[in-house]
Amino acid sequence: MSTLFGRDILRTDTLSNEELKLILSTAARFEDVTRAGGRLRNMEGRLLATLFFEPSTRTRLSFETAMLRLGGQVISVADPKTSSAVKGESLADSMRTVEGYADVIVIRHPQKGSAQEAADAVAVPVINAGDGAGQHPTQALLDVYTMQKEKGKVDGLTVALAGDLKNGRTVHSLVYLLKRLGARMIFVSPAELEMPPEIVTDLKTGGTDIQITSDLAAAMRSSDVVYVTRIQRERFEDPSRYECLKGSYVVDMALVCQAKPGITIMHPLPRVDEIATEVDAYEGAAYFRQAANGVPIRMALLALLTGRE
Amino acid sequence: MSTLFGRDILRTDTLSNEELKLILSTAARFEDVTRAGGRLRNMEGRLLATLFFEPSTRTRLSFETAMLRLGGQVISVADPKTSSAVKGESLADSMRTVEGYADVIVIRHPQKGSAQEAADAVAVPVINAGDGAGQHPTQALLDVYTMQKEKGKVDGLTVALAGDLKNGRTVHSLVYLLKRLGARMIFVSPAELEMPPEIVTDLKTGGTDIQITSDLAAAMRSSDVVYVTRIQRERFEDPSRYECLKGSYVVDMALVCQAKPGITIMHPLPRVDEIATEVDAYEGAAYFRQAANGVPIRMALLALLTGRE
Amino acid sequence: MSTLFGRDILRTDTLSNEELKLILSTAARFEDVTRAGGRLRNMEGRLLATLFFEPSTRTRLSFETAMLRLGGQVISVADPKTSSAVKGESLADSMRTVEGYADVIVIRHPQKGSAQEAADAVAVPVINAGDGAGQHPTQALLDVYTMQKEKGKVDGLTVALAGDLKNGRTVHSLVYLLKRLGARMIFVSPAELEMPPEIVTDLKTGGTDIQITSDLAAAMRSSDVVYVTRIQRERFEDPSRYECLKGSYVVDMALVCQAKPGITIMHPLPRVDEIATEVDAYEGAAYFRQAANGVPIRMALLALLTGRE
Repeated sequence: MSTLFGRDILRTDTLSNEELKLILSTAARFEDVTRAGGRLRNMEGRLLATLFFEPSTRTRLSFETAMLRLGGQVISVADPKTSSAVKGESLADSMRTVEGYADVIVIRHPQKGSAQEAADAVAVPVINAGDGAGQHPTQALLDVYTMQKEKGKVDGLTVALAGDLKNGRTVHSLVYLLKRLGARMIFVSPAELEMPPEIVTDLKTGGTDIQITSDLAAAMRSSDVVYVTRIQRERFEDPSRYECLKGSYVVDMALVCQAKPGITIMHPLPRVDEIATEVDAYEGAAYFRQAANGVPIRMALLALLTGRE
Repeated sequence: MSTLFGRDILRTDTLSNEELKLILSTAARFEDVTRAGGRLRNMEGRLLATLFFEPSTRTRLSFETAMLRLGGQVISVADPKTSSAVKGESLADSMRTVEGYADVIVIRHPQKGSAQEAADAVAVPVINAGDGAGQHPTQALLDVYTMQKEKGKVDGLTVALAGDLKNGRTVHSLVYLLKRLGARMIFVSPAELEMPPEIVTDLKTGGTDIQITSDLAAAMRSSDVVYVTRIQRERFEDPSRYECLKGSYVVDMALVCQAKPGITIMHPLPRVDEIATEVDAYEGAAYFRQAANGVPIRMALLALLTGRE
Repeated sequence: MSTLFGRDILRTDTLSNEELKLILSTAARFEDVTRAGGRLRNMEGRLLATLFFEPSTRTRLSFETAMLRLGGQVISVADPKTSSAVKGESLADSMRTVEGYADVIVIRHPQKGSAQEAADAVAVPVINAGDGAGQHPTQALLDVYTMQKEKGKVDGLTVALAGDLKNGRTVHSLVYLLKRLGARMIFVSPAELEMPPEIVTDLKTGGTDIQITSDLAAAMRSSDVVYVTRIQRERFEDPSRYECLKGSYVVDMALVCQAKPGITIMHPLPRVDEIATEVDAYEGAAYFRQAANGVPIRMALLALLTGRE
């Protein structure tokens, strides 16, 4: 039987399909219990340390909520300026110290590869909550959990991914999961921000159906889900090019009305202008439900890694 | 029967007299239990989010203490620089995300009206812990709770409010509550910092007895309670005017000895120089007891709004 | 019978030998329970406030872990910029406010003597978690607890203290405890950073065996324990002098291999370059175990001071 006891969660591609299903089904089970007003105590007497070497309120609060909703407790470094790293301590040393306090550690760090380095230093399970341009596996997991909840399944869905596909670690983690779960994908971006070709090649190997376009409206007409990410001005050498383009990647009700009926709209948040607030009232606007789904997914991971599911 | 289940607490003037009494009596009941060494578990399995977009240690710790003393748990953003607002997220979006985590939200924000905006965005109860020049309702509630505890009742008391009456949101919230509870008031301030005339007019409507003076010693001779607030140098165009005046609004033992015997001295804290430290030993110096009263008042609100009193 | 109920822990020299033994034995008892997978609930329903007027992640997390592992709860000021002190509030006033919330207070403050000032202001027990150049008693207690665990006893051990012995509050607190527990000591430092002569005189009174040297390798050949502290560049008027010296006070495997077999290596952490990372794999490298020992020691103090051991 599949188990994740004692494992780290640093990236999604090291998870087997069986492990992936175990995480999603455990999350669903936990969500059912709490939705019915039940209380879970799986992590009672256990301690989570959240170490944020780069601030991220949303992710930190989501993990802390998950731990507290399981009856556990939390110690936290929310602000890099209060950490020992400012005194010149290595990440490995910081981790080994915190290992003396906590049963499981969540780390967010601006540097790619740091989560692996952190996990290598300690015996307790480590969860990567984002390592710079690297991975953000729990985001990708809650994204597919959301699609499954909103659409009943991921297999056979057509998912449009729109916005900055070049630089977004979120979409890079997500597309590999979508491939494994049997989704078709449409990549929608300006030419400057296209999905890196090596990823496209990876995905096409094995026969995943991938389309590439810069036409958001057309993509939304044939998609079950549109996953919107932000286009940042800083990514363009020529600012006027940004000004020309930004309007084409804003999801508003005019676009939604022309899209495939019932289309689900997702966004990893925070949103700035990419989705008009008028869309919030649309039934298929799933982005706040998506954020809330981070809690059961992280509950599942905390319990599974510590052997208390 | 009066109930506050599902309500927000954004200002005091929307509370009915019955609701006000319910809050004060629930606070007293909770305080009796904890004082007798009992443990309350009303909020067990519930989560409070404290979102401080402006730091305020005292208020944040008081709310967190209240939640923990009721058996609940807390997630917290103590520092605006670690919040998603720095990434350009709207307040409404931040609130809708946190609604996915917590059962009740306390918000402090530098901008007037922000608490209302925050409450409008979500279905869970929201408590305003200060919105800039706007309201700070829990401070006003703990102030009247303190008067009731110190003096047995508020009805019929003469309360002198001294210091900066022009700019203080605390006193603006408080005077309306004092009127409703039947207190007489004396407003003591330099001419530049007088209570805004529209508030004075409001209060006199309905026949509340209001006196206006700049003589603190005289006011204290006929008051049961003196509520001191800080006069800030920055409020004066002419700094030498501040230098002239500041000494006249400092409560010291010389003033206390000439005051009405047994006068209760209050202050919302932090104090800087407005009350001499020699007064701390005086039996009627209630300001630290007043700060401690924030805990039962906030316990009452948390339990009432979530239907767990 | 010895008890610490209601006491403050501000320095180590006010603890009697009996109290010291009580702390060490209570820590050992708590550690045995938690190591066996048991859960302690001594602090259930109690609240710890950690007030860090100067950041120190390691110490704060260690205290919070201790409280949570005893079933208690925590309110926390991790960052001085979010505290009321920035509004001009005195330390005594801050303490009296927090006394209204918490059952026991841990304070870290950059100013020597501040812990005493804080403790004088309130009735609840106060623990000094470092007051500038003053004391850091819980560090010294966990250090002797570590020696006892690693070596079975402290009496009769030869302990080399190496590095900056002039400025380190940690070693200043520690040496008095070592004297009382019957250890011999070797002080190893460059001439500029020698142990202050008045401390050496104090220690020799009563016949403690003290040697003074600048030769780390020689000291390690005859020591059971070497306690390494950091030499900071800023301590030297002439930077080139620092460059000459720093290499002589780095513990690496070459030094360990020439040392007394089984020598225990300790460090209060964070370490920068004082101990080569190659030493981490050496069985006697106790510094991360030492950091973890802070938890049972602080559990013992929290329970003893509040009468819940």
